[in-house]
Amino acid sequence: MKKIRAAVVGYGNIGRYTLQALEAAPDFEVAGIVRRQGAANRPAELEKYTVTSDIRELGQVDVAILATPTRSVEAYAKEMLALGIHTVDSFDIHTQIVDLRRSLDAVAKEHGAVSIISAGWDPGSDSVVRSLLQAIAPKGITYTNFGPGMSMGHTVAVKAVEGVKKALSMTIPTGTGIHRRMVYIELKDGYDYETVAAAIKSDPYFVNDETHVTVVPSVDDVIDMGHGVNLTRKGVSGVTQNQLFEFNMRINNPALTGQVLVCVARAAMRQRPGCYTMIEVPVIDLLPGDREDLIRHLV
Amino acid sequence: MKKIRAAVVGYGNIGRYTLQALEAAPDFEVAGIVRRQGAANRPAELEKYTVTSDIRELGQVDVAILATPTRSVEAYAKEMLALGIHTVDSFDIHTQIVDLRRSLDAVAKEHGAVSIISAGWDPGSDSVVRSLLQAIAPKGITYTNFGPGMSMGHTVAVKAVEGVKKALSMTIPTGTGIHRRMVYIELKDGYDYETVAAAIKSDPYFVNDETHVTVVPSVDDVIDMGHGVNLTRKGVSGVTQNQLFEFNMRINNPALTGQVLVCVARAAMRQRPGCYTMIEVPVIDLLPGDREDLIRHLV
Repeated sequence: MKKIRAAVVGYGNIGRYTLQALEAAPDFEVAGIVRRQGAANRPAELEKYTVTSDIRELGQVDVAILATPTRSVEAYAKEMLALGIHTVDSFDIHTQIVDLRRSLDAVAKEHGAVSIISAGWDPGSDSVVRSLLQAIAPKGITYTNFGPGMSMGHTVAVKAVEGVKKALSMTIPTGTGIHRRMVYIELKDGYDYETVAAAIKSDPYFVNDETHVTVVPSVDDVIDMGHGVNLTRKGVSGVTQNQLFEFNMRINNPALTGQVLVCVARAAMRQRPGCYTMIEVPVIDLLPGDREDLIRHLV
Repeated sequence: MKKIRAAVVGYGNIGRYTLQALEAAPDFEVAGIVRRQGAANRPAELEKYTVTSDIRELGQVDVAILATPTRSVEAYAKEMLALGIHTVDSFDIHTQIVDLRRSLDAVAKEHGAVSIISAGWDPGSDSVVRSLLQAIAPKGITYTNFGPGMSMGHTVAVKAVEGVKKALSMTIPTGTGIHRRMVYIELKDGYDYETVAAAIKSDPYFVNDETHVTVVPSVDDVIDMGHGVNLTRKGVSGVTQNQLFEFNMRINNPALTGQVLVCVARAAMRQRPGCYTMIEVPVIDLLPGDREDLIRHLV
C-alpha cells in the first residue's frame, strides 16, 4: 500500500502530538518537519527526520499538517496549496472560519489541492456532533460546555500579548454554554499587571467572557493538558418534544487535536479540490482501511 | 425555493412519525403516501394527501422514504430506484448492511438515483458517532448500550413469528454492550407458549442474546416508545492513553427514526448516484439552509 506522505508544519505542543499520531497511523509516512529555525536545536525525537524551514526540501509531500499558531494558518496554507500540497489545520477562531474557507477554497481549487480547516475537537469533532444533533432534533438549543481545562488557542493568544512571559488560560464551564476564563501569567520585566491584564481582556478571544488574570510565580507548575467538553441538546424531532442528547469527553487536549489532524489529513486525500470544514467531510473518510470493512464494523 | 417532493412508503409507526417530520421540515413537500391497501381505511391525518398503492400515481417524486418492515426494504428500494426515485430506509439488520449496499448501489447507479440505507439511530446517527470516536481515538473499544426501551426491529421480528398475536421486545442494557431481551407477547388461539418462545429465541434477532419471553394479557398496556443509548469509548489518540468519550440519548424511538429518515432524504438530493450508509454522507448534507450559515453556526 502506498503510504500518505505528510509533513508537520510547526513543532510546538500540537506538532509533537501530531507526529506521534502520524507514527501510530498504519497508512502514513512522515515526510519531514517544517520549522522556522530549520534543523537548529532539533529535539531528540526528530533526529530520524528531515527538519527544514522549506517544505520543498522534503521531496513529495501529499499533505501538510499545519500545527502553527491559528493566526499564521492562512499564510502557510496558501503557500502550501500553491505548491499543490493539501493542507489541514485546527484554525480555532469560530467567527472567522467562513472567511478562511472562502479564501483557501479559491487557492485550493486553482491548484487542484484540498484544504480541511478548523479540524481539532472544537471546532472539529464537536462540530460534527453538534451538526448531527441539530439535524436529528431540528428545534432546540445545543449548549457546548468546555472544561475545566487549558485552552490551547486562548493560551497562545495570551502569550502573544506584550509583556507576557508565560501563560496558561483555563476554561471553566458555568453552565448553558457560558464560561469563565482563568488566566495565569508570568510577567516580563518592566511590564505592569494592569496594562497587561487590560490587553488580555480586550483580546477577541476574551472580550466576551468573564476573565480573571492572575500573576503566578511559575506557570509551568500549574499546567495540566487535560480538558473536557459536555455538549447537551434538548430538542424536537418532527413534533415530538423532549428528545435528550448528551456528549461528554475527558481528554488530553493536544493529543486529541493531533489525532484529529491526522484523520483529516487522510480525508484530504479523498476529497475533490476545494476547502472544507469537518462537517462537510464524510466521517468514513477519517478512517483507514477498507470501506466495506468499516461499514461492517461501525454502521 | 423548490421543495423536495417526498413520498412515505408504509404507514405504520415509523411512517406516521416520518410524515410529521416532513410536515415540520421547511424544505419538503409531501408527494403522498404509498400503502399496500391504497386509500382504503385511511386515517384522518392522511385526508389531505394522495394515498395509493402505486407510487407512479403521485406525480413527480424526488425521494421515497421507506417506512416498511426491514425485510421488505430491498424489494421496495429496487422498485423505486428503477423509476429514478431516490430512496432512504432504516434497514436495521447490522450483518446484512454491506450486502444491501452492494445490491442497491448497482441499481441506483444504473438509474442515476441515490439510496441512503440503514438510516435510523442505530444503525444511523449512532454509527456516525461510533465512526467519529474510532477515528479520533483509533485504539480502544466502543461499547454501545441500548435501552431500556422498546426495539422496533426486534418487535417487528417477534410479530412475524407464527402464533404471535401482539408483541413487544424490550432491550435491557447489562453493560459493555451486552443486552437482555425481554419479550412480551399475546398468543394467537391454538398456539402453545413453548413452540412460539423457541421460535422467537432462534430468530436471528434474538439468537445471540439472553432472551426471556413472557405472555401478558395486554401488550398495548405495557408499550412505551421511549428508548435510549449510552455509547462509551476509552481509547488512545496517537500514543496518549485514557481518552474518554460518552454519548447518551433518551428519546422517542420512532420519532427520532422518522426525523433521521427526513434528514437523509434531504441528503440524498445532494449525493452522486449510488448507495450510501450515513457514515459516508457529510453531516452538513443532513441540514436545510445555506451552507455558509450552517458552518457559521455549527462549526
